[in-house]
Amino acid sequence: MVIGNKAVTKPFSLKDLAGSAGRMDILCRCVAQALFISHGVRRDSEIYLLLLGKPDPPKALRILGSEVRYMAPDERNIGGLIRKALQIKVDRDWRLSTPGIYIARKDLKDLLDELSSRFDQIIYLREDGVDIRDIACSLKDPLFILGDHIGIKEEDEKVVLEYTDMIVSLSPLSLQADQCIVIAHYELDRCSRVSESKRQEESSP
Amino acid sequence: MVIGNKAVTKPFSLKDLAGSAGRMDILCRCVAQALFISHGVRRDSEIYLLLLGKPDPPKALRILGSEVRYMAPDERNIGGLIRKALQIKVDRDWRLSTPGIYIARKDLKDLLDELSSRFDQIIYLREDGVDIRDIACSLKDPLFILGDHIGIKEEDEKVVLEYTDMIVSLSPLSLQADQCIVIAHYELDRCSRVSESKRQEESSP
Repeated sequence: MVIGNKAVTKPFSLKDLAGSAGRMDILCRCVAQALFISHGVRRDSEIYLLLLGKPDPPKALRILGSEVRYMAPDERNIGGLIRKALQIKVDRDWRLSTPGIYIARKDLKDLLDELSSRFDQIIYLREDGVDIRDIACSLKDPLFILGDHIGIKEEDEKVVLEYTDMIVSLSPLSLQADQCIVIAHYELDRCSRVSESKRQEESSP
Repeated sequence: MVIGNKAVTKPFSLKDLAGSAGRMDILCRCVAQALFISHGVRRDSEIYLLLLGKPDPPKALRILGSEVRYMAPDERNIGGLIRKALQIKVDRDWRLSTPGIYIARKDLKDLLDELSSRFDQIIYLREDGVDIRDIACSLKDPLFILGDHIGIKEEDEKVVLEYTDMIVSLSPLSLQADQCIVIAHYELDRCSRVSESKRQEESSP
């Protein structure tokens, strides 16, 4: 889940994702990195975007790798799909926009209430957390929470911490949100390789 | 260094980076991931793009983190800077376009000739290579070679292998070029954390 502090809540210009759309470019990159690998989509991944910018916040987007179609990993393509979703009149329940992309009126607490029952672990990414490498292979169906270029505001962090099972750090450097997603996937992918080769060892005579 | 097999070699439309510009979106994301961290630029990083698309290949771009200015990590911004560079009449020597961005007429062999003397190690990223985690901390001033969505063509791979010091693999999955760059940086960043903490231990009484 990525919090877009300034991400606008009405249709925006695809020419200015990084400006008047409230750093929507960051959210587009996060979607791409959450869902795409080379020549394919991670069918087992999903991403939630919380848009808190003007003029009609909060709105939440839910994007499911298992359902998306006609999505490409470039910012303009994903921006176009988000813009389309923002044309829908929102309600508290998820409404389908295009395949795999849903939108609803939810604030941070609503969203975390829902997601904490759907995911086994809520991981809040912060630079003072435990090293992901020490815990990645013990995670099962985790949700990661990240901020955009502004981070997560103090009042929002209080809410996040109520739901957080673990605070995790990724890198000695402060990275961009989309880079954090790449690294989280990478560490989890390596765990499946380890467990896959263990299974093969165990099943060999 | 990223090889853009279809990346066009004349100015292109920023509205269609992923289409008529020959997947220039991939190269833009690679530049962003090579050079940016949160709120800053990696001053010690540089990236080379080899553009092999129509109508006037080959052209090479050299982008230096130590010199770039007015660059943002979104595709459209970086695409605009690449487009500007493509307006320049190219020569075999690097010519400055905008701060930190140079362009020249170089083919793969020209470029690798030059880069193999500038970098200590040429690392070719391929899925059957040695695991990056086993060798990352032994690398010193490496150059990584990656392909775009097409990969690296057989005839180009022959040239690359002539210059390659090591074939390295990053992930059990086949990833996009920009994701590979994030991971390579991440593994190298972690090494500097390890060596930093070792230095601190050694210097403490």
